[in-house]
Amino acid sequence: MKDYKSTALCALILVGLFGCQQTTNDPKPPELVVNNSADAQISLQLAKQALNSNLAYDIVESLTVEIGPRLAGSDKDLMAVDWAMEKLRSMGFDKVYKESVQVPAWSRGKAEASIVAPFQQPLVITALGGSVATPTNGITAPIVRFDSLAALKLAEPSTVKGKIVFIDHITERHKDGNGYGVTVGGRSKGAVEAAKKGAVAVVIRSIGTNHDRMAHTGVMRYQDDVAKIPAAAMSFPDAELINGMLKRDPNIMMSLKMSSENLGIATSYNVIAEVTGSSKPEELVLIGAHLDSWDEGTGAIDDGAGVAIVTAAAKLIQDLPQKPARTIRVVLYAAEEVGLIGGKSYVKQHADDLEKHYIAAESDFGAGPIYQIDFNVAPASFSQIQHQVSSMTLNGVALGNNKASGGPDVSMMPSLGVPVASLRQDGTDYFDYHHTPNDTLDKIDPKSLAQNVAAYVQFAYMMAQSDVELRPLTQQ
Amino acid sequence: MKDYKSTALCALILVGLFGCQQTTNDPKPPELVVNNSADAQISLQLAKQALNSNLAYDIVESLTVEIGPRLAGSDKDLMAVDWAMEKLRSMGFDKVYKESVQVPAWSRGKAEASIVAPFQQPLVITALGGSVATPTNGITAPIVRFDSLAALKLAEPSTVKGKIVFIDHITERHKDGNGYGVTVGGRSKGAVEAAKKGAVAVVIRSIGTNHDRMAHTGVMRYQDDVAKIPAAAMSFPDAELINGMLKRDPNIMMSLKMSSENLGIATSYNVIAEVTGSSKPEELVLIGAHLDSWDEGTGAIDDGAGVAIVTAAAKLIQDLPQKPARTIRVVLYAAEEVGLIGGKSYVKQHADDLEKHYIAAESDFGAGPIYQIDFNVAPASFSQIQHQVSSMTLNGVALGNNKASGGPDVSMMPSLGVPVASLRQDGTDYFDYHHTPNDTLDKIDPKSLAQNVAAYVQFAYMMAQSDVELRPLTQQ
Repeated sequence: MKDYKSTALCALILVGLFGCQQTTNDPKPPELVVNNSADAQISLQLAKQALNSNLAYDIVESLTVEIGPRLAGSDKDLMAVDWAMEKLRSMGFDKVYKESVQVPAWSRGKAEASIVAPFQQPLVITALGGSVATPTNGITAPIVRFDSLAALKLAEPSTVKGKIVFIDHITERHKDGNGYGVTVGGRSKGAVEAAKKGAVAVVIRSIGTNHDRMAHTGVMRYQDDVAKIPAAAMSFPDAELINGMLKRDPNIMMSLKMSSENLGIATSYNVIAEVTGSSKPEELVLIGAHLDSWDEGTGAIDDGAGVAIVTAAAKLIQDLPQKPARTIRVVLYAAEEVGLIGGKSYVKQHADDLEKHYIAAESDFGAGPIYQIDFNVAPASFSQIQHQVSSMTLNGVALGNNKASGGPDVSMMPSLGVPVASLRQDGTDYFDYHHTPNDTLDKIDPKSLAQNVAAYVQFAYMMAQSDVELRPLTQQ
Repeated sequence: MKDYKSTALCALILVGLFGCQQTTNDPKPPELVVNNSADAQISLQLAKQALNSNLAYDIVESLTVEIGPRLAGSDKDLMAVDWAMEKLRSMGFDKVYKESVQVPAWSRGKAEASIVAPFQQPLVITALGGSVATPTNGITAPIVRFDSLAALKLAEPSTVKGKIVFIDHITERHKDGNGYGVTVGGRSKGAVEAAKKGAVAVVIRSIGTNHDRMAHTGVMRYQDDVAKIPAAAMSFPDAELINGMLKRDPNIMMSLKMSSENLGIATSYNVIAEVTGSSKPEELVLIGAHLDSWDEGTGAIDDGAGVAIVTAAAKLIQDLPQKPARTIRVVLYAAEEVGLIGGKSYVKQHADDLEKHYIAAESDFGAGPIYQIDFNVAPASFSQIQHQVSSMTLNGVALGNNKASGGPDVSMMPSLGVPVASLRQDGTDYFDYHHTPNDTLDKIDPKSLAQNVAAYVQFAYMMAQSDVELRPLTQQ
């Protein structure tokens, strides 16, 4: 991004911190006139501060070092809630509070698997979140392989009955992470579809883009009227290994032993901090992330990064001499990983004041740089709101489309009438680490993290000052 | 390597398979006149066949899929020996046999560790090869951190006594892998040095260049007059995590539980195949690799690749209509990982005929391309033998120095008078995977593997035909 087309862009460059950048995927670059209002100037000043600050990195370092993994409903989850309350209070936000959320608790236990015939080799697997255990002595059964969930659905039950279903669908690498959406159904629905045909367990090729011998966990689902069978993921090399074996012999026996356990319902919390608006304090700009994580890494990119990004952005606004009109509400959601539980709970608890939510956005895609902002607002207002945030282009953020979901924990808001934005991050390597032991602090680039904070602070400030009417949304 | 200087090089290009290449690190490129003898032409034809062949990849795929991990002295080690005997016989070598080797057997067991105070987080560790177990209930003790083995050696015993020593030495990435040599002493000698000062266990930052949450095993040693304390390695992210904790509090308590076990002495085998020489069959060109592996990956790069490279190279010579003068002996060594046991055994068993070994070389550095050939021969013969193999430069192999060790299992040969060569591989990423679960087939590039075979077949053929006297070596 070394070229630029609009001299209007360069007019706004602040003390060398923003380069002259072409906004990628910009729908109309020749016509773009960047917002140069007083508000935009303040937002750029905030972005400049963000780019110069280590605050977000310090926050995610603190969370990952002092707390680390924080599985929803576990003791560590509650420690993370305490950590968040203390951290937010220490930062001097106008309000810091928490709202209880009932979350499903689950224990991973141990997961072991091996091929026992005709070859003998141990495998590297992990239980999928929510899976039941195997019987204590494990399950030993033949493998039946499918290219995808769709192929499993088409299978004759007689070919599946009594076997361990192996869903072998490769996740493709994309900047926007869309390979994940193609394959994740095998993880979430594989156990139900396999059990319907009489399978005794399901193992999937990990929903991930890396080649490490490390498996990717993630939530799976059961259905009340279908038998609950154990579900696990295996690493890329293990999936390749089994394919190598199947080339030699179609009759491969796998042994699987898992001691995971569903522990019922526990209490967790959405943790909330606010920068009180100066003239419309009852109106809200919600910027969120989720506090819970899977349990094998330290929850750095998923979603310590998001926690750090939105918190650091709000803190910059908190410290302004003159607060913006609307209130900035930071929501650190509970139990996103196990089914968007905190997000769903939030919209229920706030059903009566959802109309006061001007716009919402969640950061939950790692720490890669933000390259585009999409909205989901009234179509008539789309170009106006794009213009409002157009100075974000100086931070490398292109102006995108009007089809945003907003992020997992706010994805239910548009259907309830709340406008959302998606600040899209480069997720090229996100699914290398996602839901694995490799989700650790060293996978975060501090400069890229700061670019995220700069984007969020511009977005939040401009939204808190905006006079554009973003409603009503079109039908979802 | 797109440029070239010597037109002599291009005169030898065979049917487009060899590009015009500048030999990197060539000590005297302007003067290089590539050997264009009939023997060199045959060696180039063999190299061309090697570059066109999948044989080496098929061999390493077979070993890693059908056998996989093959820890010295284990049942899988003996299965690997049977696999090798059958594979070599099926390839029609003139002789296939095995020689028994007594090897130390060890069982990894389980290794678990966590930080228990003032923070609580699980760690990813692995036992070092040969380590004793902890007591059944584990060890819980404060950590004392050292930058290196050297720093530990200088420590006051009072600062170490009763603690778990953490040797935190970062391995640097180098093409020739020399970062490993700098840090590996902490792995092999850390337990002895820590125990001398009263430590209860030692954990090291893995000797590896990757950032995966995956620990690197490898052999460690005890000393008869020093207490045997448990020894483990932790992953890069875990070492960073502990450093993050130590920044906050110098008093970090670790819990460590290991059930590894020394199992006494077992029998394994050096597996040998030969292409009988046509006119000097009693003289030998030895090309080796090691058959054993660590137990967490499938032993693809360490040393399935080497097994495949030397076997495939020898097979090309086996299939020639006219065999070269000397015998090519492929030695697949036992128990390299646990202390070069097969290599040491070989020179004892062959003490009486070492003088018949014309030269020896071992492939044990993964599957990265060979970029240089070094020798350890009589100084007076060095330039002659370089000229003999100079057509290897057409395969990207530079002519190097006269300081070769030959590879681990032949490294004891020069001091016994046997000339050796080192075919140096690009090991830039070798220590990302070395001794981890990540040592799997997908880490091998088939093209690079074939380039290795091409280099070995040229080397072996030219050595089997050479009339250069390579002895006596200078004092080691």
